[in-house]
Amino acid sequence: MEQGCCTIKTLTHIPKTHPRLESLLVRERLVKGFECGLVAVEGLLAEGRGEAFDYLLGEKTSRAARKATRVAAAQLLLAKRPVISVNGNTAALCAKDVVNLAKVANAGIEVNLFYANKKRKQNIALVLKKNGATQVLGTGKKMKQLPGIDSSRRMVDKDGIFSADVVVVSLEDGDRTLALKKSGKNVITFDLNPMSRTATSADITIVDNITRAISLLAEYCKKMSGNSTKSLEGIVNKFDNKKNLADSIIEIRKHLARRARIA
Amino acid sequence: MEQGCCTIKTLTHIPKTHPRLESLLVRERLVKGFECGLVAVEGLLAEGRGEAFDYLLGEKTSRAARKATRVAAAQLLLAKRPVISVNGNTAALCAKDVVNLAKVANAGIEVNLFYANKKRKQNIALVLKKNGATQVLGTGKKMKQLPGIDSSRRMVDKDGIFSADVVVVSLEDGDRTLALKKSGKNVITFDLNPMSRTATSADITIVDNITRAISLLAEYCKKMSGNSTKSLEGIVNKFDNKKNLADSIIEIRKHLARRARIA
Repeated sequence: MEQGCCTIKTLTHIPKTHPRLESLLVRERLVKGFECGLVAVEGLLAEGRGEAFDYLLGEKTSRAARKATRVAAAQLLLAKRPVISVNGNTAALCAKDVVNLAKVANAGIEVNLFYANKKRKQNIALVLKKNGATQVLGTGKKMKQLPGIDSSRRMVDKDGIFSADVVVVSLEDGDRTLALKKSGKNVITFDLNPMSRTATSADITIVDNITRAISLLAEYCKKMSGNSTKSLEGIVNKFDNKKNLADSIIEIRKHLARRARIA
Repeated sequence: MEQGCCTIKTLTHIPKTHPRLESLLVRERLVKGFECGLVAVEGLLAEGRGEAFDYLLGEKTSRAARKATRVAAAQLLLAKRPVISVNGNTAALCAKDVVNLAKVANAGIEVNLFYANKKRKQNIALVLKKNGATQVLGTGKKMKQLPGIDSSRRMVDKDGIFSADVVVVSLEDGDRTLALKKSGKNVITFDLNPMSRTATSADITIVDNITRAISLLAEYCKKMSGNSTKSLEGIVNKFDNKKNLADSIIEIRKHLARRARIA
């Protein structure tokens, strides 16, 4: 990996007043992440799809997303062995936030890639460590196979996803989410498409841009860390993911109605 | 450019029964086009955004898109100097269809890039020629500047876009569409986002995937080539682009309603 790459602070000169500044900065981080060997070429296409859905959500955290994030925090605090699964896009976009979330949720961090190659895995682990991670799972030799996954994602760390009770995934493929579910994991996901297979098969779906939602999730974890198990369980049990997904779809429809002036 | 690259026929082994086969094949063509120097890295993100909107449109040509395509054909047949502007994505996705459209519409083909470099321009021209183009504008020395454009897109061919009355653009940036309009051109565009600046500032917006719509446009051109000027003018004059864009947005809303089961 190119020296100094992916410690991305200042990038090109997009005016600070640009109405879509945040989105353009995120895009630049991804392209930079691609150039320095973190992101797969298909990850760029996936980011583009996410951008479109984010645009339709008005590029802000909806009420439904905030609700799901709070429930996800409760679930993480209840977990015995939570693991955050990290791919190239997540590492390029928010490595620091991943490390912070892992700390406040007392969770493991595991690199798990759809389009795997050893070099890219190492690059991702390096970026996570540069951002303060003490241990990065998924890069050693203690790997086990999860059934029901065709891609290289089936190989998971024995001490990580394999033994986890709660797994946080993002920018995910549907097959893997289903396989994690079938293996008895509780799945929390960040997915901007409320209709995707991942979104509809996860236990808790946060329909929000990970760059906004992950720090909010960490905040909720901190804030609720003193809550009783009973109170946390209450929050989780009351949650209806399907209903919440429908609310996100309604949010997009409202936005479109305003645009078509047929509200 | 790698020998034999971008004469893409068979790619990886996606099962023919896959519900999203077409979309996956298009994605592969783009990645392949990137690998062989046709597509810019930002073009992959743009394709991802298009994929999301296409997904929301049900990945099929809507009635509104069909209507706009017919009007675009009439406009092309009325044009004195029509030019089809081609960028990396368009060349990677449908070079053959571009050449065919140029033939039936008696239009010029010009390479015009946002993220320009000479090598990529040459690669695109080569792919167009391999697919039967006899002349590719925008690669010679007779270049003029169009006012109001910051990117390298401002440089246009004196015998091409500079003197054109009707310009067909696709996968476009809003600034350039506005600049073309200000220069007195009639702009036809393929844009999957009915709310984009390009979509809302063009004269005729075809809210459809270019891989489906471009051959339909050529068909209409052939079918209507015997129509009188008066009849063609009637078709163009009756068209309301804003109304048609609203119809496309309504189409997306309907699709979302079905998904949220609140129809």
